[in-house]
Amino acid sequence: MSKKAQAAERLIYLPLGGAGEIGMNTYVYGYGVPGQERLIVVDLGVTFPDMDGSPGVDLIMADIDYLAAAKDRIDAIFITHAHEDHIGALGLLWETLGAPVYARNFTANIARRKMAEHGQPEKAVHVAEPWPQTVKAGPFSVGFAPLSHSIPESSALVIDTPQGRIVHSGDFKIDKTPVVGEAFDEAMFTEIAKDGVKALVCDSTNVFSPLPGRSEASLAEELDALVASLTGMIVATTFASNIARVKTLAEAGKRAGREVCLLGRAMRRMIETGVEAGILSDFPATITPEDAREVSRGRLMLIVTGSQGERRAASAALSQGAYLGLSMKEGDTFLFSSKTIPGNERGVIRVMNNFSEIGVDIVDESGGKYHVSGHANRPDLQRMHQLIQPQFLIPMHGEHRHLREHVKLGAESGLTGVVAPNGTMISLSGNVPVVCGHVEAGRTYLDGSQLIGNLDGIVRDRIRMALGGVIVVNLLIDEHDEPLGDPWCELMGLPETGSSGVPLVEVLEGDLSQYMNRADDKTLLDDERLEKEIRKIVRNLAQIEIGKKPEVMVVVSRLT
Amino acid sequence: MSKKAQAAERLIYLPLGGAGEIGMNTYVYGYGVPGQERLIVVDLGVTFPDMDGSPGVDLIMADIDYLAAAKDRIDAIFITHAHEDHIGALGLLWETLGAPVYARNFTANIARRKMAEHGQPEKAVHVAEPWPQTVKAGPFSVGFAPLSHSIPESSALVIDTPQGRIVHSGDFKIDKTPVVGEAFDEAMFTEIAKDGVKALVCDSTNVFSPLPGRSEASLAEELDALVASLTGMIVATTFASNIARVKTLAEAGKRAGREVCLLGRAMRRMIETGVEAGILSDFPATITPEDAREVSRGRLMLIVTGSQGERRAASAALSQGAYLGLSMKEGDTFLFSSKTIPGNERGVIRVMNNFSEIGVDIVDESGGKYHVSGHANRPDLQRMHQLIQPQFLIPMHGEHRHLREHVKLGAESGLTGVVAPNGTMISLSGNVPVVCGHVEAGRTYLDGSQLIGNLDGIVRDRIRMALGGVIVVNLLIDEHDEPLGDPWCELMGLPETGSSGVPLVEVLEGDLSQYMNRADDKTLLDDERLEKEIRKIVRNLAQIEIGKKPEVMVVVSRLT
Repeated sequence: MSKKAQAAERLIYLPLGGAGEIGMNTYVYGYGVPGQERLIVVDLGVTFPDMDGSPGVDLIMADIDYLAAAKDRIDAIFITHAHEDHIGALGLLWETLGAPVYARNFTANIARRKMAEHGQPEKAVHVAEPWPQTVKAGPFSVGFAPLSHSIPESSALVIDTPQGRIVHSGDFKIDKTPVVGEAFDEAMFTEIAKDGVKALVCDSTNVFSPLPGRSEASLAEELDALVASLTGMIVATTFASNIARVKTLAEAGKRAGREVCLLGRAMRRMIETGVEAGILSDFPATITPEDAREVSRGRLMLIVTGSQGERRAASAALSQGAYLGLSMKEGDTFLFSSKTIPGNERGVIRVMNNFSEIGVDIVDESGGKYHVSGHANRPDLQRMHQLIQPQFLIPMHGEHRHLREHVKLGAESGLTGVVAPNGTMISLSGNVPVVCGHVEAGRTYLDGSQLIGNLDGIVRDRIRMALGGVIVVNLLIDEHDEPLGDPWCELMGLPETGSSGVPLVEVLEGDLSQYMNRADDKTLLDDERLEKEIRKIVRNLAQIEIGKKPEVMVVVSRLT
Repeated sequence: MSKKAQAAERLIYLPLGGAGEIGMNTYVYGYGVPGQERLIVVDLGVTFPDMDGSPGVDLIMADIDYLAAAKDRIDAIFITHAHEDHIGALGLLWETLGAPVYARNFTANIARRKMAEHGQPEKAVHVAEPWPQTVKAGPFSVGFAPLSHSIPESSALVIDTPQGRIVHSGDFKIDKTPVVGEAFDEAMFTEIAKDGVKALVCDSTNVFSPLPGRSEASLAEELDALVASLTGMIVATTFASNIARVKTLAEAGKRAGREVCLLGRAMRRMIETGVEAGILSDFPATITPEDAREVSRGRLMLIVTGSQGERRAASAALSQGAYLGLSMKEGDTFLFSSKTIPGNERGVIRVMNNFSEIGVDIVDESGGKYHVSGHANRPDLQRMHQLIQPQFLIPMHGEHRHLREHVKLGAESGLTGVVAPNGTMISLSGNVPVVCGHVEAGRTYLDGSQLIGNLDGIVRDRIRMALGGVIVVNLLIDEHDEPLGDPWCELMGLPETGSSGVPLVEVLEGDLSQYMNRADDKTLLDDERLEKEIRKIVRNLAQIEIGKKPEVMVVVSRLT
């Protein structure tokens, strides 16, 4: 390779998801001549839809158009851990990328399930051994450095490149007693960093939490005391994928002499996978829902899905009656061993009030008594900065405000940071990180069975219909291009009668008949013009009658 | 009146709104023979819609069908204070009730504006003087007992009835230095209660807050320190109707030598009304937005609407660029002197991230440093219980879980309580409160200019369209009841192509043509049957092609 070409090679970082939201983690690293970089992808996560912005959508993923166009340059996909916001899109997006997938054993187990669910080849998933083992991928050499989070085998990635070492933290906390998974190993990270690290790309979700994080193991005592104090059935919820917490809860139940039953498909599957992978061999014995029905309330503890108030999860079902024949009643206790993710409050509160109506007592996380976060708080982030002492700090996994605050936090220790939201391509080749490009970073929706773009207008139309209702206008035009009969209208999602007291349909049809009778030949021949004018008439009349402008669909039927 | 009739008379309490949610306060008291009670209404509040449950709706009010049917038995409407969740529905619902409205001077001022806005007679609003003055209304005598909240002239109602005294707390906190409005007067409430109180109907919103409430006046010192520490423009937001806070913020700005400007129509109007009513004569001088544009950033403080992230409020506008020619930039600070109401997190976070992108620093309430609640916390509720020592405690203004917890709290002091959610009619005549009836308690939506019911199916249809999208199918049937041409389809809010790779419209039209060609005469004559079968075909095909079942509208055009 000539010196000229060599000089032009660069090392890039490009977040496509996760840098601008909590969830949907999708990061790209590249090395090579601009526009011809060899690429690796780190994580393919999802985030969840809501009625405000994505009604009817099933899952949200990053927009990977940039990667699709560069398919032949992708050397590998690395998955840091098995949480949905890091692995959830693998099965759905893999076909577009087509590169080998590397993950540690437990994560690979989940990854293969994701691939199989969507008809993708399980053999594309390869098990990577932990650091100091590495995987070679194009110009990159990547190692999985174990760290503590709330699911087993969570790892930071040590990414060696021709222009230096990058540490991509993944999600982590600094926990010396994490209940499941490896403890945080400061000596290992010190060793990893000893020859200098170009960039620390670092989890930012808890940058606004000022106190040092607490260990998962610290919950056992409080949970034991709570469980021991209760006499009715106990039902506890947490994220299905928070394997550490499920285990902590199950052990508390067992110590109080209760039978433990897991409810909710996602949770049962997650624990099964952990047992299969050989990393949960000490998980307490559980009973089936059928057997649970035979156990007296005071001797039973259920651990269930639905900590975020999800409508179809076990928690919501129990709050509305029964789930698999199990039901709660006065004297029972429901424990949220979880925190409500901002935006999910309405759903969680709905579940709480349903339980209140049944007479079930609710215990929430109680200011940290029954829940600790799986992410590094502010002092722990500072500790990570100290351990790695990177040349650049690039905050990831957070909303814009988290990324910005994390850069500020790093600056307090003299670190050079950059806020790089989704779609911002950063060159790491120089002495400071430089924005060297922008990629359109939309979102991909799984909608039913189809992948659609958030900017396709499809979901925008749904939101408009939800806000404005719909009026369909039908016109018949005969062989001679003359109106045949009167136009007629149908409403959907609108009141039948407006301010005049006459049915809205009649008001509309009356005015539209008049319009059609006086419409000139040119208009009657021109569907587009006809539609435009009729839409205007209908919206204006609706505004007068019902005070809102609905979506209007004009259907012109021409006899030929 | 015969003894028999007298024996049958009863005293009833019936919440129609506010007992099952925070907001929408609407309570009814009655006295008389069952079914013929004379009635008074306390508060007519609103709550706010959301995309999850009420897309396209403008405001939510209680369902007052019960009151509409009893219009001739309503003697008066009392408004405890001028917050939207107590007065917001007055102008919209008054015509249905038609009774005189009583409120204290400032509240009456707001009430008249609400009436005028909706073309209702302002003269129906009467100014009531504070306790010990009373208003006679049928069998009731009602006094406005001043107490502290976050808006002037907030009052509890002392409701004397032939069967004893009721104290209806309204919204309150126990604040001896409330900045605006009267201080909490324990001696007055002791005096009110000295001859015994049948029932305390009591605010429950903060029953889960364990610490004693803090005074509005306690904020001044922290706010002064914050404002003094900042050099750029300061923009602070709080509820427009939290007059006490607007004043506290304005005074902090003034003390730091800043010009103060109020932005947002609701806030300006609220302060103007207070000044007109003579209760805000000491409100600091403010400048207009035009003048504010001429003031240097370091000498300016804006106080703005939109603390809940509302899309059209001043905060949101500033976060997206400019409002009335004023804009924020790096080095400026935005202060949330407010708490996010559960359910509004997404909107507030959106505003925060917009500001983060501009480089504006955000200060939130910081665990109470810059915000105190206007409601009584747990120990303050206990104090109120002690002062009134009622025979019955009836929690109001809260979700079900708040009402239930408040009953439990009262029980700790030996009080007999009852959870009475919206629609539950309670007889207070006996020695214990008894549920004596149920009223259908839905919700009334202001939708554009129309009032519709939450159970009318209108909003349900909008939600279905938002979740599933819409397919309109058009059929032409000729004079001989034979299909004319092929059916055709239009999509709204749906992907154009599904799993087969053929446009969805073509797939649908192909199958529908076949169906129409083989349909028998009987079906072709029967619109309902035709629609039903076509809907089924379309939904099943859509499920196969795109994995979801849209709403289907079938339009049959018959030539005659």
